[in-house]
Amino acid sequence: MKETLTVVKIGGNVVDDPAALDAFVGEFSRLRGPKILVHGGGKEATRLSKRLEIPTVMIEGRRVTSRETLDVVTMVYAGLVNKRIVSKLQAAGCDALGLSGADGGAVRATMRPKEPRDYGFVGDIRPEGVNTDLIERLIDGGIVPVFCAIMHDGEGTLLNCNADSVASAIALGMARVRPVRLVYCFEQPGVMADIERPDSVIAEITPTSYATLKENGTVSGGMIPKIENALAAVASGVESVSIRMASALNDPDAGTTIRP
Amino acid sequence: MKETLTVVKIGGNVVDDPAALDAFVGEFSRLRGPKILVHGGGKEATRLSKRLEIPTVMIEGRRVTSRETLDVVTMVYAGLVNKRIVSKLQAAGCDALGLSGADGGAVRATMRPKEPRDYGFVGDIRPEGVNTDLIERLIDGGIVPVFCAIMHDGEGTLLNCNADSVASAIALGMARVRPVRLVYCFEQPGVMADIERPDSVIAEITPTSYATLKENGTVSGGMIPKIENALAAVASGVESVSIRMASALNDPDAGTTIRP
Repeated sequence: MKETLTVVKIGGNVVDDPAALDAFVGEFSRLRGPKILVHGGGKEATRLSKRLEIPTVMIEGRRVTSRETLDVVTMVYAGLVNKRIVSKLQAAGCDALGLSGADGGAVRATMRPKEPRDYGFVGDIRPEGVNTDLIERLIDGGIVPVFCAIMHDGEGTLLNCNADSVASAIALGMARVRPVRLVYCFEQPGVMADIERPDSVIAEITPTSYATLKENGTVSGGMIPKIENALAAVASGVESVSIRMASALNDPDAGTTIRP
Repeated sequence: MKETLTVVKIGGNVVDDPAALDAFVGEFSRLRGPKILVHGGGKEATRLSKRLEIPTVMIEGRRVTSRETLDVVTMVYAGLVNKRIVSKLQAAGCDALGLSGADGGAVRATMRPKEPRDYGFVGDIRPEGVNTDLIERLIDGGIVPVFCAIMHDGEGTLLNCNADSVASAIALGMARVRPVRLVYCFEQPGVMADIERPDSVIAEITPTSYATLKENGTVSGGMIPKIENALAAVASGVESVSIRMASALNDPDAGTTIRP
């Protein structure tokens, strides 16, 4: 039996805050066993677009990606943010290697259909698009892959993807070859029974308990797709999905764990 | 005896011209044996700096790299240009994987001393800074490393380096573990006896013939450091250095070859 792989996803709340990023780099370096980091881009792409007078258009939280916007997100996510994280991890003794989906054909995506809405150069990933051979070889060599959410279609076109979806597709893809757990770093300590009380974190959610939590309104709004994606991941072979604060990465009791 | 590794360097004349880049991608994909690509950034960094109203300061052809300029070159070289080349190579069937020096600790550089001139975040590389273990593992796995000229100091700081120097340092570093030839793609067919006559390419230069060429003025100006660097490389273990047009990459008779 191969060792469990941990796939960790961080978003803007870590990437945009130098102190939070430095603290996370320390936590992530200490995390034992084989691991992969997936990062979002935070607000830097929006800031750069503004300075370049490229309009930012969002539909349901997804960035509409024109050719010009694709250049901006490729620069910011695959260049600035990815190399900043990798160089910090290297300095902390973690043998990080930054990857877009194009690198080594690591992850292939498909451009989202133009109907009903045209998102431009936006891609979606299926677990079969994950090059498990390459990732296994890197991991077996002691490398820690650090993915940005820029993928490719294998035909020369880069595609902007959602970092949460990239993390879950990589976890699902890798689950075909070894045990995998997925950790979403979140701005709150987990899924809370009472949003006003950080000590009300629900330790475990299963399909059965989720039905109740949704019915009685404990889980609502943006948490619904997050937990439903997590439930789909554990239903398809990922061992567990944890939602927790980045600062609690190595705390065995922290956050909410979603199990099958 | 291991197979000869070819290290190819391309600059702005290829990177800035979409048609030239597409043609090069085809040529490079057909190149046999293990290979590494090193690319410059072309004029894109200067263009982006201008749009962001960040002044571009050059001293003796080297970009003075402030913190802001470092962000620009990291975005353009490690993000935009690197991923554009990698995705095109992948589409052409070449298993390219983009790297900065930070990735996998591939190449370590040292910040240039602040005296006599302060270049800011500019680094220099010695062949000992090249992580031959990582590069050998990638190459043995059929991967084609594609390097931009952004390196790191191993302590969390990214450094802007000269792409010609990166190519020669990687060639020299790798020459300690296998035979290496180095190819500089150039905007002219090679070193010409008469600058007006493209058919006057000097096929071979050795230390002895170079002394004559320099003395009689055949080689002058910007060609002097180029050839002297090439002579230094072949004196230190690189088998040969070729200076040729990118479009002639696979032509056995093209360009000027510098030999020990």
